[in-house]
Amino acid sequence: MELKEQVIRMARKAKQASQKLAKLSSTVKNEALLKMAQVLETHKDKILKLNHKDIVLAKAKGLPLALIDRLTLNEKRIKQMCGGLRQIAQLEDPVGKIESMWRRPNGLLIGRMRVPLGVIGIIYESRPNVTVDAAGLCLKAGNAVILRGGSEAINSNIALIDALSEAIQEVGLPGGCIQLVRTTDRKAVGEMLKLNEYIDVIIPRGGESLIKMVTENSTIPVIKHYKGVCHVYVDEEADLKMAEKIAFNAKVQRPGVCNAMETLLVAEKIADKFLPVVIRKLQEAGVEIRGDEKTCKISPNVKRATEEDWSTEYLDLILSVKVVSGIDEAIAHINRYGSHHSDAIITNSYIKSRKFLREVDSAAVYVNASTRFTDGGEFGLGAEIGISTDKLHARGPMGVKELTTTKFIILGEGQIRE
Amino acid sequence: MELKEQVIRMARKAKQASQKLAKLSSTVKNEALLKMAQVLETHKDKILKLNHKDIVLAKAKGLPLALIDRLTLNEKRIKQMCGGLRQIAQLEDPVGKIESMWRRPNGLLIGRMRVPLGVIGIIYESRPNVTVDAAGLCLKAGNAVILRGGSEAINSNIALIDALSEAIQEVGLPGGCIQLVRTTDRKAVGEMLKLNEYIDVIIPRGGESLIKMVTENSTIPVIKHYKGVCHVYVDEEADLKMAEKIAFNAKVQRPGVCNAMETLLVAEKIADKFLPVVIRKLQEAGVEIRGDEKTCKISPNVKRATEEDWSTEYLDLILSVKVVSGIDEAIAHINRYGSHHSDAIITNSYIKSRKFLREVDSAAVYVNASTRFTDGGEFGLGAEIGISTDKLHARGPMGVKELTTTKFIILGEGQIRE
Repeated sequence: MELKEQVIRMARKAKQASQKLAKLSSTVKNEALLKMAQVLETHKDKILKLNHKDIVLAKAKGLPLALIDRLTLNEKRIKQMCGGLRQIAQLEDPVGKIESMWRRPNGLLIGRMRVPLGVIGIIYESRPNVTVDAAGLCLKAGNAVILRGGSEAINSNIALIDALSEAIQEVGLPGGCIQLVRTTDRKAVGEMLKLNEYIDVIIPRGGESLIKMVTENSTIPVIKHYKGVCHVYVDEEADLKMAEKIAFNAKVQRPGVCNAMETLLVAEKIADKFLPVVIRKLQEAGVEIRGDEKTCKISPNVKRATEEDWSTEYLDLILSVKVVSGIDEAIAHINRYGSHHSDAIITNSYIKSRKFLREVDSAAVYVNASTRFTDGGEFGLGAEIGISTDKLHARGPMGVKELTTTKFIILGEGQIRE
Repeated sequence: MELKEQVIRMARKAKQASQKLAKLSSTVKNEALLKMAQVLETHKDKILKLNHKDIVLAKAKGLPLALIDRLTLNEKRIKQMCGGLRQIAQLEDPVGKIESMWRRPNGLLIGRMRVPLGVIGIIYESRPNVTVDAAGLCLKAGNAVILRGGSEAINSNIALIDALSEAIQEVGLPGGCIQLVRTTDRKAVGEMLKLNEYIDVIIPRGGESLIKMVTENSTIPVIKHYKGVCHVYVDEEADLKMAEKIAFNAKVQRPGVCNAMETLLVAEKIADKFLPVVIRKLQEAGVEIRGDEKTCKISPNVKRATEEDWSTEYLDLILSVKVVSGIDEAIAHINRYGSHHSDAIITNSYIKSRKFLREVDSAAVYVNASTRFTDGGEFGLGAEIGISTDKLHARGPMGVKELTTTKFIILGEGQIRE
């Protein structure tokens, strides 16, 4: 069968499944989620074996250690995946909820009812845990899902999806609920992006080239999960001890994730005092510092940043540092070079905290806390499918609710329009 | 200056203006809206003169009367536009509202703050009233707007925008807040659709070819305002008097709009009794009926519908009629042939009313009322920019709130992630 045919068949199957899924009670969906966890555990050995195949190939290709780490499964990680599914089963089911309802002067009752989106396509990096999380979240929200993971994880993903498919069929759900694009041929993505007749939304998670390709080719609405070029701005009215602690946490605690700080902005008035301390501490933790001219003057031990550095997501122990005249320059820098993800101000000034919250154009804007908290779990939204850097529909961590939409329901007793 | 350059310049100007707009107080925005109404009234004669030019050209081209009617301005319609702007000034300002805020176990306060989208591009038909409504609503929500109206309205739109621009500049707002694409060259739209760096959302209102062109070419997120192929399903348990009244209203009261009924579905059990009555009444009002085989048997006076009829938006005194076996066939027909806009069931069955509300996949689902109520004003949302047939971000009538997004704000006292 031709590739295009294959992809269309998948999409059609997903559409049909989504119509069944939309009608299911929470009880049946939760039963499916618990069964998915159970079958994953039974298939553990097979999954680890196929994952090992991916790891061997990845090592042979000399792929970066960080990628291999994210790709690697073990008993503990499989247990975590299963725990994730059981946690999703416990979340509140958004579907069917009437969010609000009001009465019009003519007696019509009008309300907004939450309903599934339909079919969701997710294109993501080589992280097998995303396969399981995304399948679970989409099912909980009553959506069929078509998953397309990174090619390095293809064997792991096939093993995982085989287990999940077995589980959902055991509880009587159609196989079209959870499907994987089982080829690493990139053309499959191109075909998928044109199927707006069957697929309701595409969620691409990844770097610039993936996002650009999807944006330029998709006829399906897209919710982008783009990079995180996150900033911490240390104001002249900051508690410098707190600023030091937060900057250190935001950079060092887990540098490989999108909510880690990539650029530190420091108010000129306190730069002399603050920078030497924080830079030394970061350097001791192995962080490479790239500074602007003023930073390099204060800390001669620092490499000069290039223009490119200000918009780079290092995902590594590298930090660019810039001295700014004050909050206005900080906000302008963030809005210009940032990726509208997560940005923080450290200040004791009430006025400046409010200004920063209002004027920084990002999904998550912080006062006196580490940007590392941008996460569905940390925000209290339950599990997340990822972090949207788009403005439409969902912005910031996307939970199960963001995988649904609403429709208006109108209850009358024969009303007509005059 | 080259066309592409011109469009980029406009978009850049809009982006700059949007940053200023986002910070404005409601008071200043409302002042601008009232001034816009006032200046429109002062420029009345000039606007009518340029509108007359459009009408003469449209008539010379032999354009349909319905189009010429929508294009035509007069003293009353200008008064209505001004009334619309004053009404928008009175709406609640969504910007800056904290929609909810909660406390996490670590003491972080996390909330969702409503903020403008940024720059909105609207591509619409030759209706000068949309120019004024859209400009007003976008401004109220703190967005800059780039308007591209139908080419038949170009002179009217230039006159209107000149007046609105004068008004906003009088109250000290930048001209980039409200701009019109002043060329009828279609290439301008193509250029606009690629400017995702400056424009945050594109709202196309119109028919199949416009929607298709925008969907296929835009790198900017799109909220489609597509056609309305709306259904009324008369169940065997319907109050037939009520059904007759609603069917008549949904078709005849204003056939040229998207929430008018295009297809009537009738349950087999009551078709013999209901169809002759309702068809006669509709025919008396000048409606042309196109029926399926069963309908034609019951009412021999009726033309046969083709397969194409079931998905056609007539916007005219034409109605397709189909006899269905019951609610399941009705729902399947609506989900297959409809445009997911507005659909109604007429029934006294509680079970079937709930089933219809749950399973019909449309922006507005009605029980025992005319589909003609799908409208921001009728729903109590205030003025509307249009009716979204998309599922993401906004579904159904889009009010001023749907022209905004949210960001997370996080207030800490030095929290770091462990």
